[in-house]
Amino acid sequence: MKPPICAKLGIEFPIFAFSHCRDVVAAVSRAGGFGVLGALAFDPEQLEVELAWLDEHTDGRPYGVDLAIPMAYIGKGGGAAALPANLEKLIPEQHWKFVDELLETHKIPPLPPELADRPVKAAGLNVDLESRAQIEVSLRHPLVKMFVNALGPPPADIIDACHAAGVLVGALCGSPRHAQKQVEAGVDVVVAQGTEAGGHCGEISTMVLIPQVVDTVGPDVPVLAAGGIGGGRQMAAALALGAQGVWTGSLWLTVAEADTHEVSVQNLLEAKSTDTVRSRAMTGKPARQLRSAWTEAWEDPANPDPLPMPLQGIIFNAASRRFTRTKSKELNGWPVGQVVGMLDRVRPTQEVVMSLVEEWIETTERLSAFLADD
Amino acid sequence: MKPPICAKLGIEFPIFAFSHCRDVVAAVSRAGGFGVLGALAFDPEQLEVELAWLDEHTDGRPYGVDLAIPMAYIGKGGGAAALPANLEKLIPEQHWKFVDELLETHKIPPLPPELADRPVKAAGLNVDLESRAQIEVSLRHPLVKMFVNALGPPPADIIDACHAAGVLVGALCGSPRHAQKQVEAGVDVVVAQGTEAGGHCGEISTMVLIPQVVDTVGPDVPVLAAGGIGGGRQMAAALALGAQGVWTGSLWLTVAEADTHEVSVQNLLEAKSTDTVRSRAMTGKPARQLRSAWTEAWEDPANPDPLPMPLQGIIFNAASRRFTRTKSKELNGWPVGQVVGMLDRVRPTQEVVMSLVEEWIETTERLSAFLADD
Repeated sequence: MKPPICAKLGIEFPIFAFSHCRDVVAAVSRAGGFGVLGALAFDPEQLEVELAWLDEHTDGRPYGVDLAIPMAYIGKGGGAAALPANLEKLIPEQHWKFVDELLETHKIPPLPPELADRPVKAAGLNVDLESRAQIEVSLRHPLVKMFVNALGPPPADIIDACHAAGVLVGALCGSPRHAQKQVEAGVDVVVAQGTEAGGHCGEISTMVLIPQVVDTVGPDVPVLAAGGIGGGRQMAAALALGAQGVWTGSLWLTVAEADTHEVSVQNLLEAKSTDTVRSRAMTGKPARQLRSAWTEAWEDPANPDPLPMPLQGIIFNAASRRFTRTKSKELNGWPVGQVVGMLDRVRPTQEVVMSLVEEWIETTERLSAFLADD
Repeated sequence: MKPPICAKLGIEFPIFAFSHCRDVVAAVSRAGGFGVLGALAFDPEQLEVELAWLDEHTDGRPYGVDLAIPMAYIGKGGGAAALPANLEKLIPEQHWKFVDELLETHKIPPLPPELADRPVKAAGLNVDLESRAQIEVSLRHPLVKMFVNALGPPPADIIDACHAAGVLVGALCGSPRHAQKQVEAGVDVVVAQGTEAGGHCGEISTMVLIPQVVDTVGPDVPVLAAGGIGGGRQMAAALALGAQGVWTGSLWLTVAEADTHEVSVQNLLEAKSTDTVRSRAMTGKPARQLRSAWTEAWEDPANPDPLPMPLQGIIFNAASRRFTRTKSKELNGWPVGQVVGMLDRVRPTQEVVMSLVEEWIETTERLSAFLADD
């Protein structure tokens, strides 16, 4: 009897894999897990292209879509508040000056004009304009069986639209109190994310968070454990804590199918678990990422403080285009969890899924043996 | 077949309970676990009294002793460097002034003269003078089956003395690299402590740390998981991660037998998991504790920075005598882990041990059922 979430989604293993890369998403779903496309960076037209590709490449298996819609933003300021044109003027001149100086110190040239005009992408940006269209696009694809919101519960009309289409709604949270709010808002699947997780995260560790969230939401709401899941022992541990499945992200940054920049893959494979930091330097909200010259600079009390989301994301987006283009190893951080210390080589996605499953089974057998008569 | 550490120590359950209170230590050992007395505050004569009492109250079951001996200190400066008389002059006047002002703000009176002269106790203090005598005392008690050092591997002669007496040596660590060093130094049992743990802790979460430490030290060295263990689901999770047992501390602060100050028990039962902070304000090394007016004051960049161990401990000791005496709820923090959010009532020690065991067994059965045929 697998955890009930497996039957609900029609999947073989309760392994949820978040990735911005469609090849990884498809490979996980084909292997019996549940790939989830991080779709923040795709406008509705691009998203349609990605999902059409996925429909053709998952062998008919289900998959999910993840966006980052901050509930409080939607419709604020006449429905257009979170557009770059409205927001850029809120960024103080001293912040741009600081970034320019920092990049100059690292000998990063400005972007050539033909690259400087591409639209700005950042968490919490353009949500008024694009979120509902992204959801509409997603719901047109019948293999999309779950929509997950990375910034708490999505607005009510989005939850209703998903439910009307038979699509489960998931949301990430970092505390029992937030989990309670999400369930009250109509969220079906709580992704409880420990402080060791990559990207936006709270302060409570996975070990402490999961049982409290499970007890708060009760037995009928599936909880997925995020943060610290890099292998099958950790998967078994997450299930022991009461989760119905695991939500993984970092693990897929270095698989053979991933489109992660080469210099970042190198940084990720070299990093130890102590090389990540929870910092506001990337999006404006605390997010775990590789420590880099970028995070160090924003942590220095002598420099300007990071701005709130989505303003900091606009700054980061502008800077990272410059330093990614020149493959700057010292500035190139990446949102990743503490499990980065367990990533030591490039492996095919299918192999990673199967090793998770095998180690999960072995671990369960080892635990059962502890209780057998001596 | 229980984890091998059980047979090595002659215990029923791989539950290690750290407590400063002998009643708790005895109750855990009687219940089939392994109580460990935090003996930092006892000089050799007092320790003898405590251990003689324990010998009479564990029903012949084994127990352990925990000290905090920083390897680098022993013998430094002619063997007497870490005495209060030598160290107090290293504390800047502005630090004492800041503390006096802080306590005045909170209306805490100075100590009456008859209380002001008691010897100073702090982690890393008096170790030159007392550590070897404390070990000698401990090794005279045959029920003491393990000595654990809270600050990494103890000096070689202490390890040798323990081994000659048939006593296992354990040490706490927060990273795979430290675990490796400990085993090379002759440590028998590695207590790998996640960042969510109470007291001194590193940055890596238990979920991420344990498998890496287990893989680093190999199958012949027992690893105990510390940090985040508040119930049987977490115990099962720790074993899934590869630990042979769990090292618990926070859990015992609020049991019926504990001698924790009443106002601290109240603070602990009220606290959520987000109410702890990793701070140098208590000992000079990062230690997780309840957030309090004390930790907040030392975190404020406008105030002096905490001093290194053991200087900060001297300051904290002087201040905490004053604010503990007046039962100041806002200053009274306590070293405790994030599991504090799961402590909601006073329970007898025996009941806590048995509920850990029962939930561990239930969890193992639930995990096995996931793999049974549908």
